Amino acid sequence: MTVIAGGVLAACKGKVPDTEAAASPQTPLPAKLGADSNLSGGTMPPPAQTALAAQQAAADQMDAMHEAGIKAFPAKTAGKGNQLLAPVMDGKTKVFNLTARPIKWENAPGMITNAWAYNDQVPGPMIRVKEGDRVRVVLKNELPESTSIHFHGLIVPNEQDGVPFITQKPVKPGATYTYEFTVSNSGSNMYHSHHNSTKQVGMGLLGAFIVEPKNPRAIERADIDHVMILNDSQGGYTLNGKGFPATEPIVAKRGQKVRIRFMNEGIMIHPMHLHGMPMTVISKDGWPQPAPWKCDTLNIAPGERWDVIVNCTELGTWAFHCHILPHAESEHGMFGMVTALIVQA
Amino acid sequence: MTVIAGGVLAACKGKVPDTEAAASPQTPLPAKLGADSNLSGGTMPPPAQTALAAQQAAADQMDAMHEAGIKAFPAKTAGKGNQLLAPVMDGKTKVFNLTARPIKWENAPGMITNAWAYNDQVPGPMIRVKEGDRVRVVLKNELPESTSIHFHGLIVPNEQDGVPFITQKPVKPGATYTYEFTVSNSGSNMYHSHHNSTKQVGMGLLGAFIVEPKNPRAIERADIDHVMILNDSQGGYTLNGKGFPATEPIVAKRGQKVRIRFMNEGIMIHPMHLHGMPMTVISKDGWPQPAPWKCDTLNIAPGERWDVIVNCTELGTWAFHCHILPHAESEHGMFGMVTALIVQA
Amino acid sequence: MTVIAGGVLAACKGKVPDTEAAASPQTPLPAKLGADSNLSGGTMPPPAQTALAAQQAAADQMDAMHEAGIKAFPAKTAGKGNQLLAPVMDGKTKVFNLTARPIKWENAPGMITNAWAYNDQVPGPMIRVKEGDRVRVVLKNELPESTSIHFHGLIVPNEQDGVPFITQKPVKPGATYTYEFTVSNSGSNMYHSHHNSTKQVGMGLLGAFIVEPKNPRAIERADIDHVMILNDSQGGYTLNGKGFPATEPIVAKRGQKVRIRFMNEGIMIHPMHLHGMPMTVISKDGWPQPAPWKCDTLNIAPGERWDVIVNCTELGTWAFHCHILPHAESEHGMFGMVTALIVQA
Repeated sequence: MTVIAGGVLAACKGKVPDTEAAASPQTPLPAKLGADSNLSGGTMPPPAQTALAAQQAAADQMDAMHEAGIKAFPAKTAGKGNQLLAPVMDGKTKVFNLTARPIKWENAPGMITNAWAYNDQVPGPMIRVKEGDRVRVVLKNELPESTSIHFHGLIVPNEQDGVPFITQKPVKPGATYTYEFTVSNSGSNMYHSHHNSTKQVGMGLLGAFIVEPKNPRAIERADIDHVMILNDSQGGYTLNGKGFPATEPIVAKRGQKVRIRFMNEGIMIHPMHLHGMPMTVISKDGWPQPAPWKCDTLNIAPGERWDVIVNCTELGTWAFHCHILPHAESEHGMFGMVTALIVQA
Repeated sequence: MTVIAGGVLAACKGKVPDTEAAASPQTPLPAKLGADSNLSGGTMPPPAQTALAAQQAAADQMDAMHEAGIKAFPAKTAGKGNQLLAPVMDGKTKVFNLTARPIKWENAPGMITNAWAYNDQVPGPMIRVKEGDRVRVVLKNELPESTSIHFHGLIVPNEQDGVPFITQKPVKPGATYTYEFTVSNSGSNMYHSHHNSTKQVGMGLLGAFIVEPKNPRAIERADIDHVMILNDSQGGYTLNGKGFPATEPIVAKRGQKVRIRFMNEGIMIHPMHLHGMPMTVISKDGWPQPAPWKCDTLNIAPGERWDVIVNCTELGTWAFHCHILPHAESEHGMFGMVTALIVQA
Repeated sequence: MTVIAGGVLAACKGKVPDTEAAASPQTPLPAKLGADSNLSGGTMPPPAQTALAAQQAAADQMDAMHEAGIKAFPAKTAGKGNQLLAPVMDGKTKVFNLTARPIKWENAPGMITNAWAYNDQVPGPMIRVKEGDRVRVVLKNELPESTSIHFHGLIVPNEQDGVPFITQKPVKPGATYTYEFTVSNSGSNMYHSHHNSTKQVGMGLLGAFIVEPKNPRAIERADIDHVMILNDSQGGYTLNGKGFPATEPIVAKRGQKVRIRFMNEGIMIHPMHLHGMPMTVISKDGWPQPAPWKCDTLNIAPGERWDVIVNCTELGTWAFHCHILPHAESEHGMFGMVTALIVQA
């Protein structure tokens, strides 16, 4: 990179005063129709200087907001979702206790929303078991309305499927309900409310349910295993319950392999774009793809899970965001579905 | 499944009074910020008891609406779309007569909309032929505006492609127009208006055009062949022209293979999620996928067709719905793009 | 094709008066509920004749608007985007100069919008290099706010990634900034602003960055190489910066292979549907798919690129459009994301 005129140093070391950018000002040309542009600067009369100065002041103001967001990343907020939930053992059965109730959730610094949560987390705590495990999930309903849990992607006996009036009665306010089954299929799955679900899942009643395979494929072995739950509902645009700059970066060493398990619990698509390195897609909804394939932008629709492997070959901090740009950046800077993959030496 | 406290019986046998759910009431805790929850109940002062009772009454009221919807499934409505249309034979040519005209269409119980339909059906009648067949489609226009038919996915001579002012003149009100061609490619295709199409397709001028291959692949042989046309336009969120609970379940015996031909004739994506068993994707737009692959949530975009095989290994009634939850459930219960796969012993 | 009654000639030769369509008028039947239709015409009383005549006059009026749009295609407008940018050589380095500034852009005949453009083009000029090339991109900012360029899909050193405050400082109004890197991965990539990007990309700061591979696969060799950049932002629904009828048709000889490089720079999905022939998908985001697969409707999400090959076997003018119909047709005729593949003898 070479600074030609009025440019700025790369890599954002914070050593270059903003005013330097104006060292070689140009006349702000009037808007023109067509392609016959005049790029030469020429002498600048005083009114144009004033106009440029005003633009630069406005630009500095906007850029300061953008910079503040980036510098705050990763910002502290109260509460952390998607934390691994240790099971209580009942003989050989892994018991997971989930309590659903209303909480306040800080989805970005200072932005506190009303949420409905499992164990006071948005997303709910991560359940992680092995293929073949016996699992019991005990749901305590402290919500003001009935609820249920559907184990999205898991093959379970019909009466454990969590659909009120089809496979069970709804779990009333104040009641407790128990699901129990043997886990027969592996992969990146989810659990969430299946009652009044537009509201209840929208408010936060959702979580990851990961099943490790008995015999993992070679391609799915990774140094880092990262679950990324996408959401766009009542808490705004979030990754694992937080909007930028409160999202969590993925930090890896060069040469490591990162597995990312994308899960969409929202109501919109989110084409996630990783800068710097391709992603190799290995599974869809927990099932192996017939052959791995590469991309840098992966479209994830509501209810879908996609597993990818990133081979961390490139050093640096790489933006990682939804490419529906209004889900990721406003005039005030980046927000929402933005995080970073940081590859260290 | 084990009922712990105030729970309800699974499998929804209707034997448990709703009041049982309140057997072990809990203090409705105030909303809290962060993760330091207090899950112990303790004694409950009278005001809290009143609050819980009010919640439970409200929950009962909401649940009753949800239950009524489920119990009504599959609900009767006037009219049935997507019925197989028997051709009239003219020598070796299969002749299909389609009349387009305004009708009233009951897309859910009591919800009657203005539709434009082929042969008074929404979707129009299913055309089903064999690869290599000679086909004639005679379109009679009884609409108040001009129209045309495009055979979406079929390889036809250009002048049979149905695009007004590119391949033909529009078919005026009162007029009749004939398409004729030899069917050269197989698969799950569609026919629909290609004139003022946002309105005309939106109003219901669409249908399935299935072409059976001369030499089917082993993987596409199925016991049940189900066409599922997704729509989201003027008739609301529908599967084959009906919203839940007026949608049609798929009923199979355990061990059977069901082929589902998803077709999106709407203007939004619909990620269809099947509970209980994976779907094996075998074709896209009528063309074989290079290798079959599994999923439980398949994103279908407007104009796309995806064919899947479901191996009915799991007994029971399995919810099957669009996972954009506001297309499937409101506070009043399930509606729209919801049906079920019922696997019987 | 056979004209039965009051029909119109196919292939739109313009020789049939519109009044012929009314030769065999039918009583406009009242809307009916259900499927028991009465398709027989019978005698028509004078009021019905008047109603039909009124319908036909309205239809003629609507059809005239549709015809005018088609006949205008491809319509002339000021400015052409996506033009190949010849590099200036600096030794072995290919130098591309880009100036970003506000312009007026005619995205459809008579529809002039405020745009922000590289080199006065929307999309910006096409950069086209070879795998292994050394590339320098010199960005001159004549916008009223700061900007930057991200090379979407290219593997570049982190400090060349174009993300303000992560990999560089923003390029201020009046300033010039230089990116330089060796191109290490091939395929259909993009460049666009990564600062205040919802607005800046939405206003037009985007372009194609094609990298030809050193060793192309046999399947990607084509007679015609067509880049199709989809957009849906401030300039409306466009293909390469223009809405129908100002879009550019793809013209091929029968037997030729056309490669289409779809790129979505908008904020919505666009399932692109080609009439008449399937598309064979060969690459995703510049990376080879493990095996090619066929479709006629390809869903392209924001940030994605998909490469397809069309084997031009079918003669004629084939409509080619987004199948979200409101992106392609209104009551006034086709507009927006519509073009054609014209296969000539």
